[in-house]
Amino acid sequence: MPHDTPYTHAAQIRFSDTDAARIAYTGRFPQLAMDAIDGWFRDRLGTDWFRLNVDEGVGTPFVHLSIDMRSPLTPRDLLETTVLVAKAGNASLEFKVIGRVGERVSFEGRFVCVFVDLASGKPMRIPERYRGAVTTEAALATDAAIPG
Amino acid sequence: MPHDTPYTHAAQIRFSDTDAARIAYTGRFPQLAMDAIDGWFRDRLGTDWFRLNVDEGVGTPFVHLSIDMRSPLTPRDLLETTVLVAKAGNASLEFKVIGRVGERVSFEGRFVCVFVDLASGKPMRIPERYRGAVTTEAALATDAAIPG
Amino acid sequence: MPHDTPYTHAAQIRFSDTDAARIAYTGRFPQLAMDAIDGWFRDRLGTDWFRLNVDEGVGTPFVHLSIDMRSPLTPRDLLETTVLVAKAGNASLEFKVIGRVGERVSFEGRFVCVFVDLASGKPMRIPERYRGAVTTEAALATDAAIPG
Amino acid sequence: MPHDTPYTHAAQIRFSDTDAARIAYTGRFPQLAMDAIDGWFRDRLGTDWFRLNVDEGVGTPFVHLSIDMRSPLTPRDLLETTVLVAKAGNASLEFKVIGRVGERVSFEGRFVCVFVDLASGKPMRIPERYRGAVTTEAALATDAAIPG
Repeated sequence: MPHDTPYTHAAQIRFSDTDAARIAYTGRFPQLAMDAIDGWFRDRLGTDWFRLNVDEGVGTPFVHLSIDMRSPLTPRDLLETTVLVAKAGNASLEFKVIGRVGERVSFEGRFVCVFVDLASGKPMRIPERYRGAVTTEAALATDAAIPG
Repeated sequence: MPHDTPYTHAAQIRFSDTDAARIAYTGRFPQLAMDAIDGWFRDRLGTDWFRLNVDEGVGTPFVHLSIDMRSPLTPRDLLETTVLVAKAGNASLEFKVIGRVGERVSFEGRFVCVFVDLASGKPMRIPERYRGAVTTEAALATDAAIPG
Repeated sequence: MPHDTPYTHAAQIRFSDTDAARIAYTGRFPQLAMDAIDGWFRDRLGTDWFRLNVDEGVGTPFVHLSIDMRSPLTPRDLLETTVLVAKAGNASLEFKVIGRVGERVSFEGRFVCVFVDLASGKPMRIPERYRGAVTTEAALATDAAIPG
Repeated sequence: MPHDTPYTHAAQIRFSDTDAARIAYTGRFPQLAMDAIDGWFRDRLGTDWFRLNVDEGVGTPFVHLSIDMRSPLTPRDLLETTVLVAKAGNASLEFKVIGRVGERVSFEGRFVCVFVDLASGKPMRIPERYRGAVTTEAALATDAAIPG
Protein backbone atom coordinates (compact mmCIF):
# COMPACT_ATOMS: atom_id res chain seq x y z
CA MET A 1 0.00 0.00 0.00
CA PRO A 2 1.60 3.29 -1.07
CA HIS A 3 2.37 5.98 1.46
CA ASP A 4 0.54 9.29 1.06
CA THR A 5 3.05 11.55 2.80
CA PRO A 6 6.80 11.90 2.31
CA TYR A 7 9.13 9.91 4.51
CA THR A 8 10.54 11.74 7.52
CA HIS A 9 13.47 10.38 9.49
CA ALA A 10 13.86 11.30 13.16
CA ALA A 11 17.29 11.43 14.81
CA GLN A 12 18.32 12.80 18.18
CA ILE A 13 21.41 14.97 17.76
CA ARG A 14 24.02 13.56 20.12
CA PHE A 15 27.21 14.64 21.84
CA SER A 16 29.08 12.49 19.33
CA ASP A 17 27.80 14.78 16.55
CA THR A 18 29.29 17.92 18.10
CA ASP A 19 32.66 19.60 17.74
CA ALA A 20 34.61 22.15 19.79
CA ALA A 21 32.43 24.95 18.37
CA ARG A 22 29.63 23.30 20.38
CA ILE A 23 27.44 22.61 17.35
CA ALA A 24 27.13 19.59 15.09
CA TYR A 25 30.28 19.24 12.97
CA THR A 26 29.97 20.15 9.28
CA GLY A 27 31.19 16.70 8.30
CA ARG A 28 28.26 15.14 10.21
CA PHE A 29 25.53 16.77 8.10
CA PRO A 30 26.07 14.50 5.08
CA GLN A 31 26.04 11.49 7.39
CA LEU A 32 22.80 12.61 9.02
CA ALA A 33 21.30 13.07 5.53
CA MET A 34 22.59 9.68 4.37
CA ASP A 35 21.10 7.97 7.44
CA ALA A 36 17.76 9.55 6.50
CA ILE A 37 18.03 8.29 2.90
CA ASP A 38 18.94 4.84 4.25
CA GLY A 39 15.73 5.06 6.29
CA TRP A 40 13.81 5.97 3.11
CA PHE A 41 15.05 2.82 1.33
CA ARG A 42 13.92 0.73 4.31
CA ASP A 43 10.54 2.40 4.68
CA ARG A 44 9.59 3.01 1.08
CA LEU A 45 11.35 0.27 -0.90
CA GLY A 46 11.49 -2.42 1.81
CA THR A 47 15.20 -2.94 1.28
CA ASP A 48 18.42 -1.21 2.29
CA TRP A 49 21.91 -0.66 0.90
CA PHE A 50 23.28 -3.72 2.68
CA ARG A 51 20.64 -6.08 1.31
CA LEU A 52 20.91 -4.48 -2.15
CA ASN A 53 24.67 -5.05 -2.20
CA VAL A 54 24.91 -8.40 -0.45
CA ASP A 55 21.65 -10.17 -1.36
CA GLU A 56 20.52 -8.52 -4.59
CA GLY A 57 23.80 -7.81 -6.40
CA VAL A 58 22.85 -4.16 -6.82
CA GLY A 59 25.05 -1.21 -5.91
CA THR A 60 23.80 2.35 -5.54
CA PRO A 61 26.93 4.51 -5.50
CA PHE A 62 26.33 8.21 -4.92
CA VAL A 63 27.77 10.47 -7.61
CA HIS A 64 26.73 13.82 -6.15
CA LEU A 65 25.85 15.37 -2.84
CA SER A 66 25.31 18.97 -1.85
CA ILE A 67 24.07 20.56 1.34
CA ASP A 68 23.20 24.11 2.32
CA MET A 69 23.46 24.61 6.04
CA ARG A 70 20.74 27.05 7.17
CA SER A 71 21.04 26.83 10.96
CA PRO A 72 23.21 24.88 13.41
CA LEU A 73 22.27 21.69 15.24
CA THR A 74 23.01 20.83 18.87
CA PRO A 75 22.16 17.90 21.18
CA ARG A 76 19.13 19.92 22.27
CA ASP A 77 17.64 19.14 18.86
CA LEU A 78 15.54 16.29 17.55
CA LEU A 79 16.25 16.41 13.84
CA GLU A 80 13.48 15.45 11.43
CA THR A 81 14.68 14.94 7.88
CA THR A 82 12.18 14.71 5.04
CA VAL A 83 13.35 12.66 2.06
CA LEU A 84 11.81 13.39 -1.34
CA VAL A 85 12.48 11.78 -4.71
CA ALA A 86 13.20 14.93 -6.71
CA LYS A 87 13.90 13.01 -9.90
CA ALA A 88 13.61 9.35 -10.84
CA GLY A 89 15.71 8.44 -13.87
CA ASN A 90 15.98 5.03 -15.51
CA ALA A 91 19.10 4.20 -13.58
CA SER A 92 19.34 6.96 -11.01
CA LEU A 93 17.53 8.66 -8.15
CA GLU A 94 17.91 12.26 -7.08
CA PHE A 95 16.86 12.92 -3.51
CA LYS A 96 15.96 16.23 -1.98
CA VAL A 97 16.44 16.21 1.80
CA ILE A 98 15.23 18.86 4.21
CA GLY A 99 16.38 18.69 7.84
CA ARG A 100 14.18 20.50 10.34
CA VAL A 101 13.99 20.99 14.10
CA GLY A 102 10.35 21.82 14.64
CA GLU A 103 9.62 24.61 12.14
CA ARG A 104 13.26 25.68 11.83
CA VAL A 105 15.10 24.47 8.73
CA SER A 106 18.62 23.30 9.53
CA PHE A 107 19.71 22.09 6.11
CA GLU A 108 18.60 21.31 2.59
CA GLY A 109 20.45 18.99 0.28
CA ARG A 110 20.51 16.99 -2.91
CA PHE A 111 21.93 13.50 -3.23
CA VAL A 112 22.13 11.52 -6.49
CA CYS A 113 22.77 7.78 -6.70
CA VAL A 114 23.12 5.46 -9.67
CA PHE A 115 21.98 1.86 -9.74
CA VAL A 116 24.78 -0.50 -10.74
CA ASP A 117 24.71 -4.20 -11.57
CA LEU A 118 27.52 -5.52 -9.39
CA ALA A 119 28.15 -8.51 -11.69
CA SER A 120 28.96 -6.34 -14.71
CA GLY A 121 29.91 -3.12 -12.92
CA LYS A 122 27.61 -1.23 -15.29
CA PRO A 123 24.63 1.05 -14.62
CA MET A 124 21.30 -0.76 -14.69
CA ARG A 125 17.62 0.17 -14.76
CA ILE A 126 16.12 0.52 -11.31
CA PRO A 127 14.85 -3.02 -10.60
CA GLU A 128 11.23 -3.55 -11.68
CA ARG A 129 10.19 -4.52 -8.12
CA TYR A 130 11.01 -1.00 -6.91
CA ARG A 131 9.70 1.08 -9.82
CA GLY A 132 6.12 1.34 -8.56
CA ALA A 133 7.20 2.73 -5.21
CA VAL A 134 9.69 5.05 -6.86
CA THR A 135 6.97 6.48 -9.16
CA THR A 136 4.67 7.00 -6.19
CA GLU A 137 7.42 8.77 -4.26
CA ALA A 138 8.33 11.01 -7.18
CA ALA A 139 4.66 12.04 -7.43
CA LEU A 140 4.56 12.73 -3.68
CA ALA A 141 7.59 15.00 -4.04
CA THR A 142 5.90 17.02 -6.78
CA ASP A 143 2.89 17.53 -4.55
CA ALA A 144 4.92 18.44 -1.46
CA ALA A 145 5.68 22.07 -0.79
CA ILE A 146 9.42 21.91 -1.44
CA PRO A 147 11.29 24.85 0.00
CA GLY A 148 14.31 26.22 -1.82
CA MET B 1 57.08 33.46 3.04
CA PRO B 2 54.21 32.72 0.68
CA HIS B 3 53.81 29.30 -0.88
CA ASP B 4 54.04 29.08 -4.66
CA THR B 5 52.02 25.93 -5.21
CA PRO B 6 48.57 24.97 -3.94
CA TYR B 7 48.28 22.98 -0.72
CA THR B 8 47.85 19.25 -1.16
CA HIS B 9 46.77 17.03 1.72
CA ALA B 10 47.79 13.36 1.76
CA ALA B 11 45.64 10.75 3.49
CA GLN B 12 45.86 6.97 3.37
CA ILE B 13 42.38 5.56 2.81
CA ARG B 14 41.77 3.11 5.65
CA PHE B 15 39.53 0.16 6.46
CA SER B 16 37.57 2.50 8.72
CA ASP B 17 36.61 4.53 5.63
CA THR B 18 35.02 1.57 3.84
CA ASP B 19 31.51 0.17 3.83
CA ALA B 20 29.99 -3.17 2.87
CA ALA B 21 30.20 -2.20 -0.83
CA ARG B 22 33.98 -2.44 -0.28
CA ILE B 23 34.67 1.17 -1.22
CA ALA B 24 34.91 4.33 0.87
CA TYR B 25 31.47 5.25 2.20
CA THR B 26 29.75 8.25 0.59
CA GLY B 27 29.44 9.93 3.96
CA ARG B 28 33.24 9.79 4.36
CA PHE B 29 34.00 11.96 1.32
CA PRO B 30 32.96 15.23 2.98
CA GLN B 31 35.04 14.30 6.03
CA LEU B 32 38.08 13.56 3.89
CA ALA B 33 37.60 16.93 2.17
CA MET B 34 37.13 18.72 5.49
CA ASP B 35 40.32 17.16 6.88
CA ALA B 36 42.14 18.52 3.82
CA ILE B 37 40.70 22.01 4.38
CA ASP B 38 41.71 21.75 8.07
CA GLY B 39 45.22 20.97 6.80
CA TRP B 40 45.08 24.06 4.56
CA PHE B 41 44.29 26.32 7.53
CA ARG B 42 47.26 24.85 9.40
CA ASP B 43 49.69 25.05 6.49
CA ARG B 44 48.65 28.31 4.87
CA LEU B 45 47.20 30.42 7.69
CA GLY B 46 49.18 28.96 10.58
CA THR B 47 46.06 28.39 12.62
CA ASP B 48 43.27 25.81 12.75
CA TRP B 49 39.56 25.67 13.58
CA PHE B 50 40.25 24.74 17.20
CA ARG B 51 42.62 27.66 17.83
CA LEU B 52 40.30 30.00 15.91
CA ASN B 53 37.35 29.02 18.09
CA VAL B 54 39.04 28.60 21.45
CA ASP B 55 41.92 31.10 21.36
CA GLU B 56 40.86 33.72 18.82
CA GLY B 57 37.08 33.96 19.33
CA VAL B 58 36.47 33.33 15.64
CA GLY B 59 34.08 30.75 14.23
CA THR B 60 34.10 29.58 10.61
CA PRO B 61 30.80 27.72 10.14
CA PHE B 62 30.34 26.12 6.75
CA VAL B 63 27.19 27.17 4.93
CA HIS B 64 27.59 25.06 1.81
CA LEU B 65 29.29 21.91 0.66
CA SER B 66 28.99 19.94 -2.54
CA ILE B 67 30.92 16.99 -3.90
CA ASP B 68 30.89 15.18 -7.21
CA MET B 69 32.21 11.67 -6.84
CA ARG B 70 34.15 10.72 -9.99
CA SER B 71 35.68 7.39 -8.97
CA PRO B 72 35.65 5.21 -5.85
CA LEU B 73 38.30 5.07 -3.13
CA THR B 74 39.60 1.95 -1.38
CA PRO B 75 42.32 1.25 1.20
CA ARG B 76 44.66 0.59 -1.73
CA ASP B 77 44.61 4.36 -2.34
CA LEU B 78 46.72 7.20 -1.04
CA LEU B 79 44.41 10.17 -1.51
CA GLU B 80 45.95 13.53 -2.34
CA THR B 81 43.52 16.41 -2.03
CA THR B 82 44.39 19.80 -3.46
CA VAL B 83 42.76 22.74 -1.70
CA LEU B 84 42.26 25.97 -3.65
CA VAL B 85 40.72 29.28 -2.57
CA ALA B 86 38.19 29.64 -5.37
CA LYS B 87 36.81 32.88 -3.96
CA ALA B 88 37.83 35.11 -1.08
CA GLY B 89 35.04 37.39 0.11
CA ASN B 90 35.21 39.94 2.90
CA ALA B 91 33.76 37.50 5.40
CA SER B 92 33.80 34.20 3.56
CA LEU B 93 36.03 31.69 1.80
CA GLU B 94 35.00 29.36 -0.98
CA PHE B 95 37.27 26.36 -1.36
CA LYS B 96 37.60 24.13 -4.38
CA VAL B 97 38.89 20.69 -3.45
CA ILE B 98 40.10 18.03 -5.86
CA GLY B 99 40.86 14.56 -4.55
CA ARG B 100 43.19 12.45 -6.65
CA VAL B 101 44.87 9.07 -6.49
CA GLY B 102 47.86 9.49 -8.75
CA GLU B 103 46.42 10.94 -11.97
CA ARG B 104 42.91 9.62 -11.32
CA VAL B 105 40.39 12.16 -10.00
CA SER B 106 38.22 10.70 -7.25
CA PHE B 107 36.17 13.75 -6.33
CA GLU B 108 35.78 17.47 -6.78
CA GLY B 109 33.97 19.68 -4.35
CA ARG B 110 33.14 23.17 -3.17
CA PHE B 111 32.98 24.22 0.46
CA VAL B 112 32.00 27.69 1.69
CA CYS B 113 32.63 28.98 5.20
CA VAL B 114 31.76 32.30 6.83
CA PHE B 115 33.89 34.04 9.46
CA VAL B 116 31.89 34.82 12.58
CA ASP B 117 32.81 36.89 15.62
CA LEU B 118 31.88 34.52 18.45
CA ALA B 119 31.34 37.38 20.92
CA SER B 120 28.59 38.98 18.83
CA GLY B 121 27.53 35.96 16.79
CA LYS B 122 27.75 38.12 13.65
CA PRO B 123 29.75 37.70 10.43
CA MET B 124 33.09 39.52 10.51
CA ARG B 125 35.79 40.47 8.05
CA ILE B 126 38.48 37.84 7.70
CA PRO B 127 41.03 38.90 10.35
CA GLU B 128 43.72 41.23 8.98
CA ARG B 129 46.51 38.82 10.00
CA TYR B 130 45.20 36.22 7.53
CA ARG B 131 44.30 38.48 4.58
CA GLY B 132 47.74 38.45 2.98
CA ALA B 133 47.90 34.68 2.87
CA VAL B 134 44.31 34.47 1.65
CA THR B 135 45.06 36.86 -1.22
CA THR B 136 48.12 34.84 -2.18
CA GLU B 137 46.12 31.63 -2.12
CA ALA B 138 43.32 33.09 -4.23
CA ALA B 139 45.91 34.14 -6.82
CA LEU B 140 47.45 30.66 -6.77
CA ALA B 141 44.03 29.17 -7.45
CA THR B 142 43.52 31.40 -10.48
CA ASP B 143 46.84 30.26 -11.88
CA ALA B 144 46.26 26.58 -11.19
CA ALA B 145 44.69 24.46 -13.88
CA ILE B 146 41.36 23.84 -12.16
CA PRO B 147 39.47 20.93 -13.64
CA GLY B 148 35.69 21.06 -13.78
CA MET C 1 9.03 8.49 39.42
CA PRO C 2 11.82 5.92 39.34
CA HIS C 3 12.03 3.39 36.54
CA ASP C 4 11.69 -0.26 37.50
CA THR C 5 13.56 -1.82 34.59
CA PRO C 6 17.00 -1.02 33.20
CA TYR C 7 17.28 1.40 30.31
CA THR C 8 17.55 -0.17 26.87
CA HIS C 9 18.62 1.84 23.84
CA ALA C 10 17.45 0.78 20.37
CA ALA C 11 19.53 1.53 17.28
CA GLN C 12 19.15 0.27 13.74
CA ILE C 13 22.55 -0.85 12.46
CA ARG C 14 23.15 1.09 9.24
CA PHE C 15 25.29 0.84 6.12
CA SER C 16 27.41 3.63 7.59
CA ASP C 17 28.35 1.29 10.45
CA THR C 18 29.77 -1.39 8.14
CA ASP C 19 33.23 -1.97 6.70
CA ALA C 20 34.59 -3.98 3.79
CA ALA C 21 34.29 -7.18 5.85
CA ARG C 22 30.51 -6.59 5.57
CA ILE C 23 29.96 -6.33 9.32
CA ALA C 24 29.91 -3.37 11.68
CA TYR C 25 33.43 -1.95 12.05
CA THR C 26 35.21 -2.63 15.34
CA GLY C 27 35.68 1.10 15.89
CA ARG C 28 31.90 1.57 15.73
CA PHE C 29 31.14 -0.61 18.78
CA PRO C 30 32.36 1.93 21.34
CA GLN C 31 30.35 4.63 19.57
CA LEU C 32 27.21 2.48 19.61
CA ALA C 33 27.77 1.87 23.33
CA MET C 34 28.41 5.57 24.00
CA ASP C 35 25.20 6.52 22.17
CA ALA C 36 23.35 4.10 24.46
CA ILE C 37 24.94 5.66 27.57
CA ASP C 38 24.02 9.12 26.21
CA GLY C 39 20.45 7.81 25.97
CA TRP C 40 20.66 6.63 29.59
CA PHE C 41 21.63 10.13 30.81
CA ARG C 42 18.65 11.56 28.91
CA ASP C 43 16.16 8.95 30.08
CA ARG C 44 17.29 8.36 33.64
CA LEU C 45 18.90 11.65 34.73
CA GLY C 46 16.93 14.03 32.51
CA THR C 47 20.10 15.66 31.22
CA ASP C 48 22.76 14.89 28.65
CA TRP C 49 26.48 15.50 28.14
CA PHE C 50 25.87 18.67 26.17
CA ARG C 51 23.64 20.25 28.81
CA LEU C 52 25.99 19.08 31.57
CA ASN C 53 28.97 20.72 29.88
CA VAL C 54 27.35 23.86 28.49
CA ASP C 55 24.57 24.63 30.98
CA GLU C 56 25.68 23.00 34.22
CA GLY C 57 29.47 23.41 34.18
CA VAL C 58 29.94 19.67 34.71
CA GLY C 59 32.18 17.45 32.63
CA THR C 60 32.03 13.66 32.62
CA PRO C 61 35.23 12.51 30.92
CA PHE C 62 35.52 8.78 30.42
CA VAL C 63 38.67 7.25 31.89
CA HIS C 64 38.10 3.64 30.86
CA LEU C 65 36.24 1.66 28.28
CA SER C 66 36.36 -2.01 27.39
CA ILE C 67 34.28 -4.14 25.07
CA ASP C 68 34.13 -7.84 24.36
CA MET C 69 32.68 -8.54 20.96
CA ARG C 70 30.63 -11.76 21.10
CA SER C 71 28.99 -11.74 17.66
CA PRO C 72 29.02 -9.44 14.62
CA LEU C 73 26.44 -6.82 13.72
CA THR C 74 25.06 -6.07 10.26
CA PRO C 75 22.39 -3.70 8.87
CA ARG C 76 19.94 -6.60 9.23
CA ASP C 77 20.12 -6.03 12.98
CA LEU C 78 18.18 -3.83 15.35
CA LEU C 79 20.59 -3.44 18.24
CA GLU C 80 19.17 -3.16 21.75
CA THR C 81 21.73 -2.04 24.31
CA THR C 82 20.95 -2.34 28.01
CA VAL C 83 22.76 0.18 30.21
CA LEU C 84 23.34 -0.69 33.86
CA VAL C 85 25.03 1.29 36.63
CA ALA C 86 27.51 -1.36 37.78
CA LYS C 87 29.06 0.93 40.38
CA ALA C 88 28.21 4.40 41.63
CA GLY C 89 31.11 6.12 43.35
CA ASN C 90 31.13 9.56 44.90
CA ALA C 91 32.54 11.14 41.77
CA SER C 92 32.32 8.38 39.20
CA LEU C 93 29.95 6.01 37.45
CA GLU C 94 30.79 2.61 36.04
CA PHE C 95 28.41 1.40 33.38
CA LYS C 96 27.90 -2.13 32.20
CA VAL C 97 26.48 -2.27 28.69
CA ILE C 98 25.10 -5.33 26.95
CA GLY C 99 24.24 -5.12 23.26
CA ARG C 100 21.75 -7.68 21.97
CA VAL C 101 19.94 -8.50 18.75
CA GLY C 102 16.91 -10.40 19.96
CA GLU C 103 18.33 -13.08 22.27
CA ARG C 104 21.79 -13.00 20.73
CA VAL C 105 24.46 -11.06 22.65
CA SER C 106 26.63 -8.98 20.33
CA PHE C 107 28.83 -7.25 22.89
CA GLU C 108 29.38 -6.55 26.57
CA GLY C 109 31.34 -3.64 27.87
CA ARG C 110 32.34 -1.46 30.78
CA PHE C 111 32.64 2.31 30.65
CA VAL C 112 33.79 4.51 33.54
CA CYS C 113 33.31 8.28 33.71
CA VAL C 114 34.36 10.81 36.32
CA PHE C 115 32.39 13.91 37.23
CA VAL C 116 34.49 17.06 36.95
CA ASP C 117 33.76 20.63 37.98
CA LEU C 118 34.65 22.55 34.83
CA ALA C 119 35.39 25.75 36.76
CA SER C 120 38.14 24.15 38.85
CA GLY C 121 39.03 21.23 36.58
CA LYS C 122 38.80 18.93 39.63
CA PRO C 123 36.69 15.84 40.28
CA MET C 124 33.44 16.60 42.07
CA ARG C 125 30.70 14.65 43.84
CA ILE C 126 27.90 13.60 41.52
CA PRO C 127 25.48 16.54 41.78
CA GLU C 128 22.85 16.07 44.49
CA ARG C 129 19.99 16.41 41.98
CA TYR C 130 21.12 13.20 40.25
CA ARG C 131 22.04 11.06 43.26
CA GLY C 132 18.55 9.66 43.85
CA ALA C 133 18.23 8.41 40.31
CA VAL C 134 21.79 7.05 40.37
CA THR C 135 21.06 5.07 43.55
CA THR C 136 17.89 3.65 42.03
CA GLU C 137 19.75 2.64 38.89
CA ALA C 138 22.56 0.99 40.85
CA ALA C 139 19.94 -1.05 42.74
CA LEU C 140 18.26 -2.02 39.46
CA ALA C 141 21.61 -3.26 38.14
CA THR C 142 22.11 -5.47 41.19
CA ASP C 143 18.72 -7.02 40.65
CA ALA C 144 19.17 -7.54 36.92
CA ALA C 145 20.57 -10.81 35.70
CA ILE C 146 23.89 -9.49 34.46
CA PRO C 147 25.61 -11.86 32.09
CA GLY C 148 29.38 -12.07 32.12
CA MET D 1 64.52 -6.91 6.75
CA PRO D 2 63.07 -6.86 10.26
CA HIS D 3 62.49 -3.59 12.06
CA ASP D 4 64.42 -3.03 15.27
CA THR D 5 62.09 -0.56 16.96
CA PRO D 6 58.35 -0.77 17.58
CA TYR D 7 55.99 0.80 15.06
CA THR D 8 54.74 4.27 15.93
CA HIS D 9 51.82 5.85 14.12
CA ALA D 10 51.57 9.64 13.87
CA ALA D 11 48.20 11.38 13.59
CA GLN D 12 47.33 15.03 13.88
CA ILE D 13 44.31 15.41 16.16
CA ARG D 14 41.72 17.34 14.15
CA PHE D 15 38.63 19.44 14.75
CA SER D 16 36.60 16.46 13.53
CA ASP D 17 37.88 14.48 16.55
CA THR D 18 36.56 16.98 19.10
CA ASP D 19 33.25 17.30 20.90
CA ALA D 20 31.48 20.10 22.73
CA ALA D 21 33.73 19.54 25.78
CA ARG D 22 36.52 20.81 23.50
CA ILE D 23 38.59 17.64 23.72
CA ALA D 24 38.71 14.54 21.54
CA TYR D 25 35.48 12.55 21.95
CA THR D 26 35.73 9.32 23.96
CA GLY D 27 34.35 7.36 21.02
CA ARG D 28 37.25 8.58 18.86
CA PHE D 29 39.98 6.96 20.99
CA PRO D 30 39.28 3.42 19.79
CA GLN D 31 39.25 4.68 16.19
CA LEU D 32 42.58 6.45 16.67
CA ALA D 33 44.00 3.23 18.14
CA MET D 34 42.54 1.13 15.32
CA ASP D 35 44.05 3.45 12.69
CA ALA D 36 47.42 2.92 14.38
CA ILE D 37 46.99 -0.88 14.31
CA ASP D 38 45.98 -0.62 10.63
CA GLY D 39 49.26 1.27 10.11
CA TRP D 40 51.12 -1.55 11.90
CA PHE D 41 49.70 -4.17 9.51
CA ARG D 42 50.84 -2.05 6.55
CA ASP D 43 54.29 -1.30 7.93
CA ARG D 44 55.17 -4.57 9.60
CA LEU D 45 53.22 -7.24 7.65
CA GLY D 46 53.05 -5.48 4.28
CA THR D 47 49.31 -6.01 4.05
CA ASP D 48 46.19 -4.38 5.48
CA TRP D 49 42.70 -5.39 6.54
CA PHE D 50 41.26 -4.58 3.12
CA ARG D 51 43.77 -6.72 1.21
CA LEU D 52 43.45 -9.49 3.82
CA ASN D 53 39.68 -9.59 3.42
CA VAL D 54 39.33 -8.95 -0.30
CA ASP D 55 42.49 -10.48 -1.79
CA GLU D 56 43.59 -13.10 0.72
CA GLY D 57 40.30 -14.47 2.07
CA VAL D 58 41.39 -13.77 5.63
CA GLY D 59 39.33 -11.91 8.22
CA THR D 60 40.75 -10.50 11.46
CA PRO D 61 37.71 -9.67 13.59
CA PHE D 62 38.49 -8.01 16.90
CA VAL D 63 37.06 -9.80 19.92
CA HIS D 64 38.27 -7.43 22.63
CA LEU D 65 39.31 -3.84 23.05
CA SER D 66 40.02 -1.80 26.14
CA ILE D 67 41.40 1.67 26.63
CA ASP D 68 42.45 3.65 29.68
CA MET D 69 42.33 7.36 29.01
CA ARG D 70 45.17 9.06 30.90
CA SER D 71 44.98 12.61 29.53
CA PRO D 72 42.81 14.43 26.99
CA LEU D 73 43.64 15.15 23.34
CA THR D 74 42.98 18.36 21.44
CA PRO D 75 43.77 19.62 17.91
CA ARG D 76 46.92 21.16 19.41
CA ASP D 77 48.29 17.62 19.68
CA LEU D 78 50.23 15.43 17.31
CA LEU D 79 49.41 11.94 18.58
CA GLU D 80 52.06 9.26 18.32
CA THR D 81 50.75 5.78 18.99
CA THR D 82 53.15 2.91 19.57
CA VAL D 83 51.81 -0.51 18.60
CA LEU D 84 53.29 -3.57 20.29
CA VAL D 85 52.47 -7.26 19.82
CA ALA D 86 51.83 -8.14 23.46
CA LYS D 87 50.95 -11.75 22.63
CA ALA D 88 51.07 -13.78 19.45
CA GLY D 89 48.87 -16.87 19.57
CA ASN D 90 48.40 -19.46 16.85
CA ALA D 91 45.30 -17.76 15.55
CA SER D 92 45.24 -14.44 17.39
CA LEU D 93 47.20 -11.28 18.07
CA GLU D 94 47.00 -9.14 21.17
CA PHE D 95 48.17 -5.59 20.65
CA LYS D 96 49.25 -3.14 23.30
CA VAL D 97 48.86 0.45 22.13
CA ILE D 98 50.25 3.52 23.87
CA GLY D 99 49.21 6.96 22.61
CA ARG D 100 51.55 9.80 23.49
CA VAL D 101 51.86 13.52 22.80
CA GLY D 102 55.55 14.16 23.31
CA GLU D 103 56.31 12.60 26.71
CA ARG D 104 52.73 12.78 27.92
CA VAL D 105 50.75 9.52 27.79
CA SER D 106 47.21 10.07 26.54
CA PHE D 107 45.95 6.49 26.49
CA GLU D 108 46.94 2.87 26.79
CA GLY D 109 44.93 0.03 25.37
CA ARG D 110 44.70 -3.63 24.46
CA PHE D 111 43.13 -4.94 21.28
CA VAL D 112 42.75 -8.63 20.41
CA CYS D 113 41.96 -9.96 16.93
CA VAL D 114 41.43 -13.50 15.67
CA PHE D 115 42.44 -14.73 12.23
CA VAL D 116 39.51 -16.31 10.39
CA ASP D 117 39.42 -18.22 7.13
CA LEU D 118 36.60 -16.45 5.30
CA ALA D 119 35.80 -19.53 3.18
CA SER D 120 35.00 -21.70 6.21
CA GLY D 121 34.22 -18.98 8.75
CA LYS D 122 36.55 -20.75 11.19
CA PRO D 123 39.63 -19.51 13.06
CA MET D 124 42.88 -20.27 11.25
CA ARG D 125 46.58 -20.20 12.03
CA ILE D 126 48.20 -16.87 11.26
CA PRO D 127 49.34 -17.34 7.62
CA GLU D 128 52.89 -18.65 7.34
CA ARG D 129 53.99 -15.61 5.30
CA TYR D 130 53.36 -13.34 8.30
CA ARG D 131 54.69 -15.52 11.13
CA GLY D 132 58.29 -14.36 10.87
CA ALA D 133 57.38 -10.73 11.20
CA VAL D 134 54.93 -11.49 14.00
CA THR D 135 57.63 -13.32 15.96
CA THR D 136 60.03 -10.42 15.49
CA GLU D 137 57.41 -7.95 16.65
CA ALA D 138 56.54 -10.02 19.72
CA ALA D 139 60.23 -10.06 20.66
CA LEU D 140 60.46 -6.29 20.15
CA ALA D 141 57.52 -5.81 22.50
CA THR D 142 59.21 -7.86 25.21
CA ASP D 143 62.29 -5.70 24.94
CA ALA D 144 60.37 -2.40 24.93
CA ALA D 145 59.75 -0.68 28.21
CA ILE D 146 56.00 -1.19 28.34
CA PRO D 147 54.28 1.14 30.78
CA GLY D 148 51.24 -0.05 32.72
